[in-house]
Amino acid sequence: MSFPDLLKQDAALVQARLDTALATQDDVPVVQAMRYAVQGGKRLRAFLVLESARLHGIAPEAAVAAAAAVEALHAYSLIHDDLPCMDDDDLRRGLPTVHVKWDEATAVLAGDALQTLAFELLCDPALGAPDRRLALVAGLARASGAEGMVLGQALDIAAETAATPLTLPEITRLQAGKTGALICFSAEAGAILAGADPAPLRAYATALGLAFQIADDILDVEGDEAATGKRVGKDAGAGKATFVSLLGLEGAKNRANALIGEAEAAVSPYGDRAAALIAAARFVISRQS
Amino acid sequence: MSFPDLLKQDAALVQARLDTALATQDDVPVVQAMRYAVQGGKRLRAFLVLESARLHGIAPEAAVAAAAAVEALHAYSLIHDDLPCMDDDDLRRGLPTVHVKWDEATAVLAGDALQTLAFELLCDPALGAPDRRLALVAGLARASGAEGMVLGQALDIAAETAATPLTLPEITRLQAGKTGALICFSAEAGAILAGADPAPLRAYATALGLAFQIADDILDVEGDEAATGKRVGKDAGAGKATFVSLLGLEGAKNRANALIGEAEAAVSPYGDRAAALIAAARFVISRQS
Repeated sequence: MSFPDLLKQDAALVQARLDTALATQDDVPVVQAMRYAVQGGKRLRAFLVLESARLHGIAPEAAVAAAAAVEALHAYSLIHDDLPCMDDDDLRRGLPTVHVKWDEATAVLAGDALQTLAFELLCDPALGAPDRRLALVAGLARASGAEGMVLGQALDIAAETAATPLTLPEITRLQAGKTGALICFSAEAGAILAGADPAPLRAYATALGLAFQIADDILDVEGDEAATGKRVGKDAGAGKATFVSLLGLEGAKNRANALIGEAEAAVSPYGDRAAALIAAARFVISRQS
Repeated sequence: MSFPDLLKQDAALVQARLDTALATQDDVPVVQAMRYAVQGGKRLRAFLVLESARLHGIAPEAAVAAAAAVEALHAYSLIHDDLPCMDDDDLRRGLPTVHVKWDEATAVLAGDALQTLAFELLCDPALGAPDRRLALVAGLARASGAEGMVLGQALDIAAETAATPLTLPEITRLQAGKTGALICFSAEAGAILAGADPAPLRAYATALGLAFQIADDILDVEGDEAATGKRVGKDAGAGKATFVSLLGLEGAKNRANALIGEAEAAVSPYGDRAAALIAAARFVISRQS
């Protein structure tokens, strides 16, 4: 199966699990907003969960709740990041953001409830023994809290009012929290479920996550809104430091390519079985959205 | 030990656990805001966790992480409820609210990270076997998500713009989510940790939670800001339906007293060992803050 087809197949699987989790309470606007926010997207994190599970002999059905958890957590972070008091974005995945379509209160609450849902999904007995599920809870909490995703977003907000633009080490730390931590957890999840060593997948995902963010910064310069489904040119317009402003366009592309090489090397112990992960790494830097 | 002394002792224990959890990253404003938000309060929920643990032969040291989790989750809900787009409160526990002292972005992120911290605390090995800890994760997720606390807050926000004031069944459903679900989970936590039947404690806490909210509505009419540490008279001023507006002041007091009787009856199977829970129930309707 080609990588785009595999990505689509995994996306359909995770969407079905999210739909089941959000099937009740049709009359509550917060639940409608949650359902709206978990639609679409590339589902790269879900793919990483399901592929790292397959790599360890775990069928998608026995890992899909973890993939859904990661996508629910990602959706929560997007809703809150888009709020007027944060990045103030009105467009996401080609649609109005939640606070634009509903209101700010609904956006705060829908994000809050999607974070809760992520942890609830990790309690799904289909994921296996309680100690494995608890290890997923601990891993997701580490990735998303004040030493992970929230730290990255806080550094991002602070950078907007800082006197001087961020340096390369500072922006790398910011990225490691904001997008890197959850991408790492996604790739490790299959190993955690199998009780295997997650180190090779962590090394793969650390390089992948950084390449992903560099590619995002390149898209903010070279991409268009119709393809990305979100506003572009925002960072450059705001005079914000990005990997492109720090390394130049060519330098950023070279760095992203080098990182994809690192990601490929990290999963070489898996041999041919890592083909889909390698295809995903190449996809990350060639994508248009 | 008198109930106020027991409450203070449990509060000190849970504060120490929260301080440990938030001891790092002194330089990050979000972490400073998290630490600020978990100070003070009555710590009734922490007491319920520790007392239900004692009732099942579990020492406070082996339950304190669950008590800290519940207080972290409660603190997150207060930060977000106080936001301008929600209840727009500037005073909490006698101090400026987080978005007033810092800003809205920091308040959103500090709340987000405190929710994460709550689930992280439930992974603490001191709480016992993985299956018990996972049952706590599932219970906390149920209490806090779109069928619990978030649902209650959403109904509360919706009521503010509704054409007609809420009815008694509607406000009871709202309360069951907004404050009742977490109070219930707190009281059940010790039974969950012990693998015991949580039904008597659930019945106790269901009555207690409702009495607690009725007492809150009475305090909004009869209390003063110096004692409560928050704005009073807000609900009546906004023409919002409350238990007092629906039942009258005397009717609300009678209903609260009857509920405390129900709470006491629910824990009668525990005999003398339920003395502190009964003292807590009486405290809930006699408190001034």
